[in-house]
Amino acid sequence: MKKLNIGVIGAGRIGQVHIENIVQRIQIAEVVAIADTNFELATTISEKYSIDHAYENYKELINLKNLDAILICSSTDTHSEIIIEAARAGKHVFCEKPIDMTIQKTKEALSAVDASGIKFMVGFNRRFDPNFSKVKGEIQNDKVGDIHIVKITSRDPGPPPIEYILGSGGVYMDMVIHDFDMARFITNSEVDEIFCKGMVRVDPEIKTAGDFDTSVAVLKFVDGTLVIIDNSRKAIYGYDQRLEVFGSKGMLGAENNKADNHFYYDENGKHESLPLHFFMQRYTQSYLNEINEFCESVFNNKIPPVSGRDGLEAIRIAMAAKLSATENRPVKMSEIE
Amino acid sequence: MKKLNIGVIGAGRIGQVHIENIVQRIQIAEVVAIADTNFELATTISEKYSIDHAYENYKELINLKNLDAILICSSTDTHSEIIIEAARAGKHVFCEKPIDMTIQKTKEALSAVDASGIKFMVGFNRRFDPNFSKVKGEIQNDKVGDIHIVKITSRDPGPPPIEYILGSGGVYMDMVIHDFDMARFITNSEVDEIFCKGMVRVDPEIKTAGDFDTSVAVLKFVDGTLVIIDNSRKAIYGYDQRLEVFGSKGMLGAENNKADNHFYYDENGKHESLPLHFFMQRYTQSYLNEINEFCESVFNNKIPPVSGRDGLEAIRIAMAAKLSATENRPVKMSEIE
Amino acid sequence: MKKLNIGVIGAGRIGQVHIENIVQRIQIAEVVAIADTNFELATTISEKYSIDHAYENYKELINLKNLDAILICSSTDTHSEIIIEAARAGKHVFCEKPIDMTIQKTKEALSAVDASGIKFMVGFNRRFDPNFSKVKGEIQNDKVGDIHIVKITSRDPGPPPIEYILGSGGVYMDMVIHDFDMARFITNSEVDEIFCKGMVRVDPEIKTAGDFDTSVAVLKFVDGTLVIIDNSRKAIYGYDQRLEVFGSKGMLGAENNKADNHFYYDENGKHESLPLHFFMQRYTQSYLNEINEFCESVFNNKIPPVSGRDGLEAIRIAMAAKLSATENRPVKMSEIE
Amino acid sequence: MKKLNIGVIGAGRIGQVHIENIVQRIQIAEVVAIADTNFELATTISEKYSIDHAYENYKELINLKNLDAILICSSTDTHSEIIIEAARAGKHVFCEKPIDMTIQKTKEALSAVDASGIKFMVGFNRRFDPNFSKVKGEIQNDKVGDIHIVKITSRDPGPPPIEYILGSGGVYMDMVIHDFDMARFITNSEVDEIFCKGMVRVDPEIKTAGDFDTSVAVLKFVDGTLVIIDNSRKAIYGYDQRLEVFGSKGMLGAENNKADNHFYYDENGKHESLPLHFFMQRYTQSYLNEINEFCESVFNNKIPPVSGRDGLEAIRIAMAAKLSATENRPVKMSEIE
Repeated sequence: MKKLNIGVIGAGRIGQVHIENIVQRIQIAEVVAIADTNFELATTISEKYSIDHAYENYKELINLKNLDAILICSSTDTHSEIIIEAARAGKHVFCEKPIDMTIQKTKEALSAVDASGIKFMVGFNRRFDPNFSKVKGEIQNDKVGDIHIVKITSRDPGPPPIEYILGSGGVYMDMVIHDFDMARFITNSEVDEIFCKGMVRVDPEIKTAGDFDTSVAVLKFVDGTLVIIDNSRKAIYGYDQRLEVFGSKGMLGAENNKADNHFYYDENGKHESLPLHFFMQRYTQSYLNEINEFCESVFNNKIPPVSGRDGLEAIRIAMAAKLSATENRPVKMSEIE
Repeated sequence: MKKLNIGVIGAGRIGQVHIENIVQRIQIAEVVAIADTNFELATTISEKYSIDHAYENYKELINLKNLDAILICSSTDTHSEIIIEAARAGKHVFCEKPIDMTIQKTKEALSAVDASGIKFMVGFNRRFDPNFSKVKGEIQNDKVGDIHIVKITSRDPGPPPIEYILGSGGVYMDMVIHDFDMARFITNSEVDEIFCKGMVRVDPEIKTAGDFDTSVAVLKFVDGTLVIIDNSRKAIYGYDQRLEVFGSKGMLGAENNKADNHFYYDENGKHESLPLHFFMQRYTQSYLNEINEFCESVFNNKIPPVSGRDGLEAIRIAMAAKLSATENRPVKMSEIE
Repeated sequence: MKKLNIGVIGAGRIGQVHIENIVQRIQIAEVVAIADTNFELATTISEKYSIDHAYENYKELINLKNLDAILICSSTDTHSEIIIEAARAGKHVFCEKPIDMTIQKTKEALSAVDASGIKFMVGFNRRFDPNFSKVKGEIQNDKVGDIHIVKITSRDPGPPPIEYILGSGGVYMDMVIHDFDMARFITNSEVDEIFCKGMVRVDPEIKTAGDFDTSVAVLKFVDGTLVIIDNSRKAIYGYDQRLEVFGSKGMLGAENNKADNHFYYDENGKHESLPLHFFMQRYTQSYLNEINEFCESVFNNKIPPVSGRDGLEAIRIAMAAKLSATENRPVKMSEIE
Repeated sequence: MKKLNIGVIGAGRIGQVHIENIVQRIQIAEVVAIADTNFELATTISEKYSIDHAYENYKELINLKNLDAILICSSTDTHSEIIIEAARAGKHVFCEKPIDMTIQKTKEALSAVDASGIKFMVGFNRRFDPNFSKVKGEIQNDKVGDIHIVKITSRDPGPPPIEYILGSGGVYMDMVIHDFDMARFITNSEVDEIFCKGMVRVDPEIKTAGDFDTSVAVLKFVDGTLVIIDNSRKAIYGYDQRLEVFGSKGMLGAENNKADNHFYYDENGKHESLPLHFFMQRYTQSYLNEINEFCESVFNNKIPPVSGRDGLEAIRIAMAAKLSATENRPVKMSEIE
């Protein structure tokens, strides 16, 4: 059995997560090259995981012979360009979300993908979380019947640096985009209209940066489902990631994962541990499952479970969300290109 | 100690709840008269609880000497008229919600109350539920800090008859009005703007009746708090009444009350009992606490805990909600009179 | 419909619970007489609940014409004598547990009951608690299959006064007896052997009084079921009353009832309310159900759900328990008379 | 930094767990040799994990130069002999529990350890489970005060083959021994006396094999703590591993880990996932933490967290347990050698 040869572009936090998962837990693939504009970092990581090649320029990586697939873990503004080059080189691509911050460039990248016939997958890792996967599976088992209302709560333990926010496209593009994808994943339908109410309650600097830190979104889907998403940049009790799906036959949902399952009773009450504090711990399993699915898809010549169109739609919804919050009105998806 | 003499107008379900609570559990008050346009019912109930007087015409009840206070449990269209007459007769009034279905008549009734100096309380019983009271108390203890997001879930086990809906003013006036009051109670602030999305997913007849059975509301309060309310006329698993209050210092909330606290593990999973199925069981304690508070207020000459203005505001929000859902746009409270 | 006329002997805490339940919530019965050696108390209570007769000497109560049934809520040392007199007078009897602290006198009382043909019920109220009733019902629905292990946890919020302990027969007779009855109720089998380990960990005075405050009991039932009961006189977090039934088809159990269902997350964890603090709150519903069942049994001429034999067996087990703890060895039930 | 060179004796299930953990997740150690009497298995595993040496005879492994430590994962009857040889060769030893099934040979092995000065650790992995570790830590933070009662529930999803039971020393030696160690770990005290009641309720063949499949144990510790352990070879709902520690200041405990945190409400109730089904999933993290602690101890020259004496005491308690169950009487630990 010949293993898949994988190259990783971007050696930062999320790149390292994928590398470690492939190196340690995925039998059918190995990481043979890494590229990062920070060449020292690329070298350090390549040594740590015994990776053959380290590059400063990702183009060298793409041109490596025997390379089967590329993981794009670099900054968002480089994604579409790399996708296009990789597609032309005939390398399969796994790309972190979002594909790009403009619809135009996203579409160009996806056109290149389509033209090339490569396999392409976007990194919406939460679809692969065991809790949310279970909920999705039970929906497919018709446990909920017709879905009437979906509620998604997604709150971070603390806001990112202002510099990050200035470059990220804002809360709808860097954070709520995950929840928009989750809503599409759960309903298996498309958004018809969205209304968002954004506030700044956590840090006034976020207002100065033209963004929101507290938001509520109401999405009406084509099939009539209403989805509510509530977000905050700062939940003092940790990372809050919950889902509830209500329909004609019942209600499915997912609670947070706690740090441990201990409990304590004293004179004041019953006490338990908090939710896992950050996404690296909370979504450990989802990252492994996600990259495993990608490798399996390439290895066994199957269609990857998250498509380019999934990536595109999430971006379109994020844009509609921002427009709605800015203009304080419901926005039809048909308004977005 | 002389007990309060109380007269009850309306001997239906909710009237009987109040009568039984006063007769059996409130030491400082007794029910001395009852009136119902169904005189047979009035008589039956008066005999069951050993009540001295039963009338067909409520005016006779109001004119009873020695009567201290009146509970208005008749149909909504009679409320304002009875309030005005009771106020003129100097009887204290407890009135079931809503006060009236028009703002004009509500204001007239409240003017009569103000002119008379009687004590007046509106029956938003959920404020007196032990779970929600506890949450409110802990908010006052500053456990949440600044409130950023409030989530209220309120779903009935099944829709009322279409005839009821035709006369009730619709879902925002007969059902969500409770949640609007809860939002004001919890935030201790006033609504600035509301956006509602109403759907018909449960029963097409409800559409024919010009109403919704599934709804999501987003309220922006004057203090910046966002409130989300989701409602359904039909939750197959029972009566779903939950609350979540998220803020700078933490998150408070209330789970449903279950029928019992048993659990069962078999090969398929862990199983527990459902939430209490209907409001009569779910809010048993709140009805007792509510009427007790009213009696205490009159007995000890204190201001009742739910004011006429609380009743008025809930109606105004319900109207704004309907307008928003109809016109599919956020509605400012300033648009409502 | 003629109501049952009931007389209550003993106007203390538990007597008052039964009186209030009958007066306020049971339609088929009324309390017509009360007796207490503290005549002032008897008078006060009779006035509070509008009871016709108050006596110092219970014999007068027993001899009342038209009296149908008697509730014995006086001190344990008076039970057997009153039972015998009531039986001779043809009055049905509800007797608080334990029937007596000796097997001899218990048997004499039960003989009198048998000879008279009156209905007789012992006050093991926990059988009527909604949680434990639900568990029992589900066992009867064969949800557990063959029962292998039963676990009962029963801990009080604080120890009673030493004087009480000196007269109560000790922890096995005054406290664990409830759990012994629960074990028989749940297993529907009889004890074959018991091993108890008693300790004094809460208060050294309890040792001086010759009793234990912390205990573990292991009971082997005739059908092979093992039952573990753990008890403490002092749980700082309140009244801990849990049950778990493990068998070939699954596990049933009952959690504590909490004061309310609120939750709170802050930086330190998730926090919830404690179990209801004392038996008067925890078992409110069970006391009502219990006395209602007794009244129904008499009214409809049915066999009461807790028999004299149930009372006798609980006492025998309590005696075996004490013997086991004292001699530090398993004791066969056949050793106890 | 030179890594620890580790050799593993026994390439079965538990050996593979340790190998995979060291290879994939422990930076300071590497597995350089493996031995198994099934040489084919040893070879397969050595290839899978790129281990340099594979042997049929463990003696060759012990004599490897540059080997720092040995993990003994072979059958129990080989443990003491291997320990003695490893100690003489100056290799540090991690040994799976139990050390041996006789106290005599256990003591001989520990004497060899003492004489050699090697580091020695016994594999009571549950001490390293995050839930139980948390409970232990909070006990050390004095959250419970004086411990009065400890309850341990430990039930397997299904019985092992009869052949296994015939060679394992029985349920107390192969299964409950974990719980005996947990009791010592939690109380930080020593057993004074034990009473066990063993039954056969799952499979009559187990009776034929002279063993029990259902058991309750009551342990009195020197410090006065009572510990209750209940065990079953077959819990239809999965692997049930719970702990409860009750004392003067409160109650600490640990719930089971579930397969996921989804929930589902339908007309019949609320439903959740079962506990993780088997020890390999349930204790995944504990195995990693355990072997990491061993490697750290050797690497940094610290005393390993589970001592030879811990191994010895667990065996002594298991023997007392069997004696108690057989003779149906409480057994003093002083009776065991």
